[in-house]
Amino acid sequence: MANDNRATDSIDRDEDYGLTQALMDRIDAAMEAGDRPALDAALEPMHAADIADLIERLTPARRRAFLTLYADGIDGEILSEIDESIREEVLDQLPQAVVAEAVREMDSDDVVDLVEDLDQPDRDQILAALDAGDRAAVQQSLAYPEYSAGRLMQSEVVTAPEHWTVGQTIDFIRAEEWLPEQFYHVILVDPRRHPTGYVTLGRLLASPREATMRDLAEDSFRTISAQAEEGDVAYLFNQYHLISAPVVDDHDRLVGVITIDDAMTVLDDEHEEDILRLAGVNDESHVSDSALTTARQRLPWLVINLFTASLSAIVITQFEATISTLVALAALMPIVASTGGIAGTQSLAVAVRALATRDLNRSNARRVVMRELGAGLLNGLGLALILGIAGTVIFGDPKLGVVLGMAMIVNQIVAALGGVLVPLGLNKMGLDPALASGTFVTTMTDVMGFFAFLGLATLILI
Amino acid sequence: MANDNRATDSIDRDEDYGLTQALMDRIDAAMEAGDRPALDAALEPMHAADIADLIERLTPARRRAFLTLYADGIDGEILSEIDESIREEVLDQLPQAVVAEAVREMDSDDVVDLVEDLDQPDRDQILAALDAGDRAAVQQSLAYPEYSAGRLMQSEVVTAPEHWTVGQTIDFIRAEEWLPEQFYHVILVDPRRHPTGYVTLGRLLASPREATMRDLAEDSFRTISAQAEEGDVAYLFNQYHLISAPVVDDHDRLVGVITIDDAMTVLDDEHEEDILRLAGVNDESHVSDSALTTARQRLPWLVINLFTASLSAIVITQFEATISTLVALAALMPIVASTGGIAGTQSLAVAVRALATRDLNRSNARRVVMRELGAGLLNGLGLALILGIAGTVIFGDPKLGVVLGMAMIVNQIVAALGGVLVPLGLNKMGLDPALASGTFVTTMTDVMGFFAFLGLATLILI
Repeated sequence: MANDNRATDSIDRDEDYGLTQALMDRIDAAMEAGDRPALDAALEPMHAADIADLIERLTPARRRAFLTLYADGIDGEILSEIDESIREEVLDQLPQAVVAEAVREMDSDDVVDLVEDLDQPDRDQILAALDAGDRAAVQQSLAYPEYSAGRLMQSEVVTAPEHWTVGQTIDFIRAEEWLPEQFYHVILVDPRRHPTGYVTLGRLLASPREATMRDLAEDSFRTISAQAEEGDVAYLFNQYHLISAPVVDDHDRLVGVITIDDAMTVLDDEHEEDILRLAGVNDESHVSDSALTTARQRLPWLVINLFTASLSAIVITQFEATISTLVALAALMPIVASTGGIAGTQSLAVAVRALATRDLNRSNARRVVMRELGAGLLNGLGLALILGIAGTVIFGDPKLGVVLGMAMIVNQIVAALGGVLVPLGLNKMGLDPALASGTFVTTMTDVMGFFAFLGLATLILI
Repeated sequence: MANDNRATDSIDRDEDYGLTQALMDRIDAAMEAGDRPALDAALEPMHAADIADLIERLTPARRRAFLTLYADGIDGEILSEIDESIREEVLDQLPQAVVAEAVREMDSDDVVDLVEDLDQPDRDQILAALDAGDRAAVQQSLAYPEYSAGRLMQSEVVTAPEHWTVGQTIDFIRAEEWLPEQFYHVILVDPRRHPTGYVTLGRLLASPREATMRDLAEDSFRTISAQAEEGDVAYLFNQYHLISAPVVDDHDRLVGVITIDDAMTVLDDEHEEDILRLAGVNDESHVSDSALTTARQRLPWLVINLFTASLSAIVITQFEATISTLVALAALMPIVASTGGIAGTQSLAVAVRALATRDLNRSNARRVVMRELGAGLLNGLGLALILGIAGTVIFGDPKLGVVLGMAMIVNQIVAALGGVLVPLGLNKMGLDPALASGTFVTTMTDVMGFFAFLGLATLILI
């Protein structure tokens, strides 16, 4: 059995992984025919995450058909993999009994993730399916702010007193009826439930039964405040190669544990947010969105850009007399502006990324800004040389070459500085540095590009 | 001790984590004075990853001073955390004995990571420090292609035959002299070393000594080919919430294991590559680079942009007669072009991200392209309405409003389609969809924006 699966489970670059076209066709045919056994057969070998992806990719009408046909096949694992963007829709279409059963299977962090964006009545209805202890754990998590470590943690934790032996700990774990689905450490706690260290399961297994837990604890030990932001949690896991980390309340008491797979999901979400926000896209966009939803998500920044682009138009209008004297200027001015736009985007992407990884912070901000200034000046000189010579040769007018070159130097410096100062400024104001930076910076480089070029042309050429 | 650390280890949003300004000042002072004990005291509580960050942030001269003063403090953990960009420089400055000692402490995957970019003589010198078995493991890894699973894996694996009991397995682990630093699973293998399943350490600990390993194996089991690309490995870990996964050779024999912390690093690197490449930055950029290095990394795409921007200039030149008749056109044309640029960037960011997460693939590419077309048309209509009315009111010429509106619709459609078709095309050719897409797409929207606006103006207004 395992041998048979191995070949197909091994990954291959050109495959669509779980969801191959052949499989999609089989599923389509089964849904067309309303043939549940055939659908079961097609979905049986699939991982819950792939089934969730499948549900996300269907059109809303086909999704409804799928959920009707496959309702009781939806379990806790699939439900917790379903993307936020369609989660409410899916929950609404499933019978209550199916949701209740699924929720009972889930770890507390997955239940929190599932219900946190629901209205109070919907949320209460789902929580009612849980037994009292699990419900209390979920409600404790929900009491912490959104996007906090408290929302991310699971309450299910395996703990032991420091003075226990390995043997006692193993016997305790063997006797325990209920254990988290995955755990990698035993957290050591004092009598008041303050975490004092942790022992990896590998270390526990490798040690003799009579060894004391205290002596097996890892050197580096780090707790996370339940109030910490999830982005900071992801950073800590990535920076310190954590596998799981204990979460403590304001009194330093253990309230839960965060595992690396949750941190990896947060890291991935933050990436998505950065790359989309930099481009001026509402970060809730999803591949299954309709054209209308997509248009609506993107319109706000487009409209804002209409206004910021009007600034360029106003600047150019001031130089109409210059342009009508030498119409070639109208053709050349976008070169200065667009090269500035590219430079600004480069500087911006580097700064936003460095802020996200904490490589750029207060201790080196000044040095990085000076570095950008230097790089902008150097590239401005290089580009000015190329463009200046080309302009002189093509138009036979050295003065035009000088104007092009000087405007390029000015705009490259503005671009390099704008690209780093805008995100640093947003960050200082407590805003996401990726938010809208792209529009601000390209507006700066457009306006400055047109102004420097046309202004210098007016002074030198006309 | 653990209690004392807790408060400072708990994270706080406004801190620079390990590297606070106060700590940097202490380190500076110790280096200034050449005071090794003071430096030791400052660095003692720091995690290896933070010390590596510190070394990265120093200027090259200060880095040399630091490495001279602290040479024998550099251990395997710190060395494996040091960023690629300065790794060779650091290795060159450390005494051979320090490097040899550090390398002997490292897991095979970290040694591979350290030496893979070195020249053969430097590489051989470092490998000579390892004992024969470790050296063979590293060389086996190095025989796989760069950026493959084979390079990412560690050879240190804990395995057991399927027929063993829990008791036998635990006794085996206890007796084993040498174990990987971190391990989370026992991999079950058949007599020919084909992996057949895995047992989590949690499950192993929770089960009675007489239980058979075969019966404890997890349902879902997935091997990774040593030839697989590391990006695919990261995707698998993220998609299936894997903690570790066995790596097999072409004959399906177990050759190593990849753990989630390595996959998380790859995911983070891939994201960096995407965000920087989209912006036209050489992906080897680093916060510690000098202005000259930075300028050099960014110049290539700036120069390319000079040429692509010249396309816009050539288009505009064709309409010089039109512009000299109505100079206001020169002021208005950047509005159409720049709004197209924003729309193209939006569509592009969504497509690149969706390709990276496999949300966009062959099974839905057509639908996503149609979605973009629809969204481009809708936003084109919306923006045309705003701009058309504004143009009419401000310039008192309804025909100018019509020209602006029509050009906007055309360019929004070009932007939306270009943003998705360029990365899809690059992907189909086996290239990174993020590579240079930004420059291509904004060139398209600039050229088309100027052409549509000035062309329509020539037809309708002149």
